[in-house]
Amino acid sequence: MKKAAILFAATVLVVSGGFVRAQALDDSRPATSNVMNEEYPRVFPDRRVTFRVKAPDALKVQVLPAPRVWNGLGDGPYDMVKGADGFWTVTIPPAEPGLHNYFIVVDGFQSNDPGSQTFPGYSLSCSAVEIPDPNADFYDTKAVPHGDVRIRWYFSKTTETWRRVYVYLPPDYEKNTGTRYPVFYLQHGSGEDETSWILQGRANFILDNLIAGGKAKPMIIVMENGMIARKPGPRTPEQRSNEAFEDVVVKDLVPMIDAAFRTIPDREHRAIAGLSMGSGQALQIGLTHLDMFSHIGGLSGVPRETDPKTAYGGAFSDPEAFNKKVRLLWIGGGVREERFYQGSKKIQETLTKAGIKIVFYECPFAHEWQTWRYCLHELAPKLFRN
Amino acid sequence: MKKAAILFAATVLVVSGGFVRAQALDDSRPATSNVMNEEYPRVFPDRRVTFRVKAPDALKVQVLPAPRVWNGLGDGPYDMVKGADGFWTVTIPPAEPGLHNYFIVVDGFQSNDPGSQTFPGYSLSCSAVEIPDPNADFYDTKAVPHGDVRIRWYFSKTTETWRRVYVYLPPDYEKNTGTRYPVFYLQHGSGEDETSWILQGRANFILDNLIAGGKAKPMIIVMENGMIARKPGPRTPEQRSNEAFEDVVVKDLVPMIDAAFRTIPDREHRAIAGLSMGSGQALQIGLTHLDMFSHIGGLSGVPRETDPKTAYGGAFSDPEAFNKKVRLLWIGGGVREERFYQGSKKIQETLTKAGIKIVFYECPFAHEWQTWRYCLHELAPKLFRN
Repeated sequence: MKKAAILFAATVLVVSGGFVRAQALDDSRPATSNVMNEEYPRVFPDRRVTFRVKAPDALKVQVLPAPRVWNGLGDGPYDMVKGADGFWTVTIPPAEPGLHNYFIVVDGFQSNDPGSQTFPGYSLSCSAVEIPDPNADFYDTKAVPHGDVRIRWYFSKTTETWRRVYVYLPPDYEKNTGTRYPVFYLQHGSGEDETSWILQGRANFILDNLIAGGKAKPMIIVMENGMIARKPGPRTPEQRSNEAFEDVVVKDLVPMIDAAFRTIPDREHRAIAGLSMGSGQALQIGLTHLDMFSHIGGLSGVPRETDPKTAYGGAFSDPEAFNKKVRLLWIGGGVREERFYQGSKKIQETLTKAGIKIVFYECPFAHEWQTWRYCLHELAPKLFRN
Repeated sequence: MKKAAILFAATVLVVSGGFVRAQALDDSRPATSNVMNEEYPRVFPDRRVTFRVKAPDALKVQVLPAPRVWNGLGDGPYDMVKGADGFWTVTIPPAEPGLHNYFIVVDGFQSNDPGSQTFPGYSLSCSAVEIPDPNADFYDTKAVPHGDVRIRWYFSKTTETWRRVYVYLPPDYEKNTGTRYPVFYLQHGSGEDETSWILQGRANFILDNLIAGGKAKPMIIVMENGMIARKPGPRTPEQRSNEAFEDVVVKDLVPMIDAAFRTIPDREHRAIAGLSMGSGQALQIGLTHLDMFSHIGGLSGVPRETDPKTAYGGAFSDPEAFNKKVRLLWIGGGVREERFYQGSKKIQETLTKAGIKIVFYECPFAHEWQTWRYCLHELAPKLFRN
């Protein structure tokens, strides 16, 4: 409360672009995740964040970080303090680096911060604040060649709908017309969509930088929407969704991608990975279709099947054969992810004990995009190396 | 109030996908602009719309259509009525067809409807509801060949930043590797961005359908962000912004596009148009660079210069020469746009009187995307015909 009051006293009103705006007389800066010209939220060099919204007639206004626990903004909710001008303000303690979802809650109405861009999350269009990472520039937009991201529509026989897919093409895909490329299928988490790895994950910039530095092979990345409309039946909604998505990938998506782009259309040059819910989907689809995929990654997933003898249709039952056939089984996550981190560790320990070769990676973050940016930066260089 | 109460009584709670949701026992349907699985807003066959949000502790909740007057939802604001479960509901009279922006205002806090996707508008990420048009299927996603939309990053020397551009490539651009295409530069309005013509305007589907029907030439469409950071100086912020954007288009964007894609890089095969603020930009850039552009379109713009002898650097001062040089000068708008419609009419009347050949089009809608969808559907077939 005291911080908020001090900050509010240190603001002045300025007229800019026809709008009256509050500008802080301190060393904070508007978050890069704000919509154009919006001053709040603002981020301090020590990663404190000031939020500010207008709600002149409200009784109670809060900043509610998401997920509810173990996120980079701290648990919250944070009570905002009302000023005489009808604006509510709060400055929260230093946040973790990365992109953090949050809601503004006004008298029980949970919605967005008008100052923030929106990103797919929690099956909503969700506010988020980007906190700079002093230890990482690997996802910055740098002066290197940039790959395009294509938005492509295709008809799925599985869902009987037109579906939208995002496809990253490496720099110079257009120029190197004689070159064919390996393909990496990369999935988002629950409540997100095919735009997430670009909008939140900055996957294109991560690959641009890795490729420019000679650290990753040029590759195509395909991002689809794993939140598939649920079909009726006796199984749980999640099971039905995952089964439908498996069919979309195997029967519709992979053939379409191989027809539409200059891919190397064999298992040696096809990888699949995903995060959280997408980890479950990637492991399920990859491990039960080893004729299609040779590189498989699970980020921040909690395994549903854990017995190496029977899990994933018995894929691990002959470890020697598995290790020979699968070029890479990669598991990663963040140490602040709680049960998701425990899930990743459990996969590693169980499979290692069973004699399965596995590459394990952990970073210091929560169940949020900073963990998955770090994971992609670690995983991509290991793909298609042999 | 009565309608809202009746509707609320006609709902039941159902458990679906792990969530308890209210489902209306009537012939309304969730809007196609909703986020996944969200039931509200719902649209009736007669185009009434029911809005519903949770705000258990609020004193006053309203639906606020945008723009404030002359929009397809009616002027509003519409007071919502609180139910015993903390949900607020209102059913509004039949809306116009098209995509309509709106806000939810809770105790003076103006933000989004969590049930809606967000779209760039009013320099915010804004809610909107899509109302079906009984007289138009030209922007539907049909079973025709679809062009990709590319998200491309390039460095602008004018702004000294990496900029993002959306580029529509016609179907079979990839297959017809010996074919070069004309280019149409197409700009959004104030407070929107480079994604708007795709996300709100459905420009890609409009062109897919026109091209499939043989009604428009296959062409590349380039969409940039005309809301350029303002630079210091003695002019108005709007003037500074427009001048910077002119430099971006002429010096950075056109050369980049001609280098990156198989364009026909001459004035005969280059068009420029825009809507509202973008109309002003397109007329300014097109008419003062007739060495670069041969087809020029203004949608829903209010002209700043009206004297045919001096406007746009004297472009109209020799009507005969102008009519010979310019392949198409196209002006369009909606009759419910108020001052923007008057602006379009004024351009038409002034220039026609001065002997300038002009194609004028009007549709029955407001200063919203339905007008601009109709305009694009009319304008695109007239491009690159001779």
